[in-house]
Amino acid sequence: MVRVLPVCVLGLGLIGGSVLRAASAAGRAVWGATASTADAEAATAAGFTVEASLDDALRRADEEDALVVLAVPLTALPEVLRSVAAFAPGCRLTDVTSVKGAVTEAVRKINPYARYVGGHPMAGTSRSGWASGSAELFRDAPWVVTTEDDSDQEVWAEVVQLALSCGAHVVPTSSAAHDDAVARISHLPHLLAAVLASVGASGGPLSLALAAGSFGDGTRVASSRPELVQAMCEGNRAALLDAVDDALGRLGAARGSLASTGGLAATVNAGHLARRELEQHRSGPRQAVKVDLTADNAMATLRDLGNRGGRLTSLDGTVAVVKTL
Amino acid sequence: MVRVLPVCVLGLGLIGGSVLRAASAAGRAVWGATASTADAEAATAAGFTVEASLDDALRRADEEDALVVLAVPLTALPEVLRSVAAFAPGCRLTDVTSVKGAVTEAVRKINPYARYVGGHPMAGTSRSGWASGSAELFRDAPWVVTTEDDSDQEVWAEVVQLALSCGAHVVPTSSAAHDDAVARISHLPHLLAAVLASVGASGGPLSLALAAGSFGDGTRVASSRPELVQAMCEGNRAALLDAVDDALGRLGAARGSLASTGGLAATVNAGHLARRELEQHRSGPRQAVKVDLTADNAMATLRDLGNRGGRLTSLDGTVAVVKTL
Repeated sequence: MVRVLPVCVLGLGLIGGSVLRAASAAGRAVWGATASTADAEAATAAGFTVEASLDDALRRADEEDALVVLAVPLTALPEVLRSVAAFAPGCRLTDVTSVKGAVTEAVRKINPYARYVGGHPMAGTSRSGWASGSAELFRDAPWVVTTEDDSDQEVWAEVVQLALSCGAHVVPTSSAAHDDAVARISHLPHLLAAVLASVGASGGPLSLALAAGSFGDGTRVASSRPELVQAMCEGNRAALLDAVDDALGRLGAARGSLASTGGLAATVNAGHLARRELEQHRSGPRQAVKVDLTADNAMATLRDLGNRGGRLTSLDGTVAVVKTL
Repeated sequence: MVRVLPVCVLGLGLIGGSVLRAASAAGRAVWGATASTADAEAATAAGFTVEASLDDALRRADEEDALVVLAVPLTALPEVLRSVAAFAPGCRLTDVTSVKGAVTEAVRKINPYARYVGGHPMAGTSRSGWASGSAELFRDAPWVVTTEDDSDQEVWAEVVQLALSCGAHVVPTSSAAHDDAVARISHLPHLLAAVLASVGASGGPLSLALAAGSFGDGTRVASSRPELVQAMCEGNRAALLDAVDDALGRLGAARGSLASTGGLAATVNAGHLARRELEQHRSGPRQAVKVDLTADNAMATLRDLGNRGGRLTSLDGTVAVVKTL
């Protein structure tokens, strides 16, 4: 059995605040810290322990051997990692940030002694701050836990248990595969929403007056805090460039076809089939596969199952159960 | 007072079926016809009169001096217009199709004696067919009624009354301005949803496994029936090309900025402000302006108010009330 560690959450916005609530609801000892006075006051008022500073929270994490969760925006990460290096240098460390390559690099550079395993719950909304969070935010959501051949397996198991105790299922994959995937399904959608909103608004008040479901859906995430969107997109530059090029190629092909033959069947049909793939992925039947974590290739096996759409739904001692399509 | 005309609806899918229900709920005599046996049976079972054929429904429209509503897909329009020309050549005619230029042209060509005023309720969903409709589909939705200097004012008033009696507000504008606007806020969103769905699915099962809110929202309309999406986008070719070029330019600029300086602030901030414009447009305070329909420039005045985001909310005799921002 994995011992249930206390959890120290740094940053109490939408995601960090929800981790704090969910981990507490699952029976763990939890405390947090945040640079936001508003979030600190709200969390305190809700009955949670908020330390006076990040440094205090980290000192306690060091003393009580806690799992430290980085839940600050990407732009604040270097400064927070310097605090981790100063006050809890050898701690078990994870994060909930939307890119993994840049975070892994920053951890290696600033805090090489931390026992870090990356995480990313896929449960954002366009709202932000403590007040928008809830203990149920991660219910049935995917939570990526980076799974490399050289991952610290004890910390890996701790991060998996945290995700499961928050109600999520775990998607085990590499940092690089995560970043490629989120470029396509999270960062590109944010860029396309921004572009679509601008094209619509440039049509003036008549366009806004006629905007209905398709425009409302397609631009919804453009109401997210722009500095957060900017940071996550810029933090995944290489993978996002590939995804943008893919989108530009497909939109350019549609443009060419519309201008020449006038036909859009290829674009529309491909998009329809792709959307059906998403719906089938979500509702398809799954079977359980057991993975022995003591096997030599356990991390590679898990990563392979994750890359094929598998969901790790329980971890009991050294046996992980992955539900595969 | 405008006499309350009976309404004959041709096509009983999502939109036509909802017009039939809403007009009936507003106390009008209604009947319909459809080429779909399933829709005809469902509408009959719900207690509505469905004539055996389009020709029968049109004969009755001619006899009873009805307002005829074309609610068939764009691709079926020429054939239906030939029936109108044969069985109710001088009827009052409107439509609920998502493009106005192409429909106006088809009416002029095939059925020049019809007294046609175009319409377009902005209330689609990704579902289709009679079963997906409801009498409340148009509640508080914008319904474009084409408003040209040479519009037949009596028919124009009839179409406005139909829209208002269905619970919608009317946006008076020209056919050309409508087509430009819907290219930006309806047809482009459908193309971008198709492109995004394809880029996401090409990332394989891992991408689909991680797809959350932004991808789900951004691809939702890709689940619409592809032949309907194709027809409406292809039917608005010139305006859609402009909108696609605008999107390609903005996405290309974001790509260039990401590749060179790595910065996305301009794209993300512009999109955020544009989305806020949409929200402000929807919730902003409005004041009522009265328009005298007997004035020489009444149509131009209404069109101007519509183009500036105004909503026509009532029509009493010769006085229209437009709520402006």
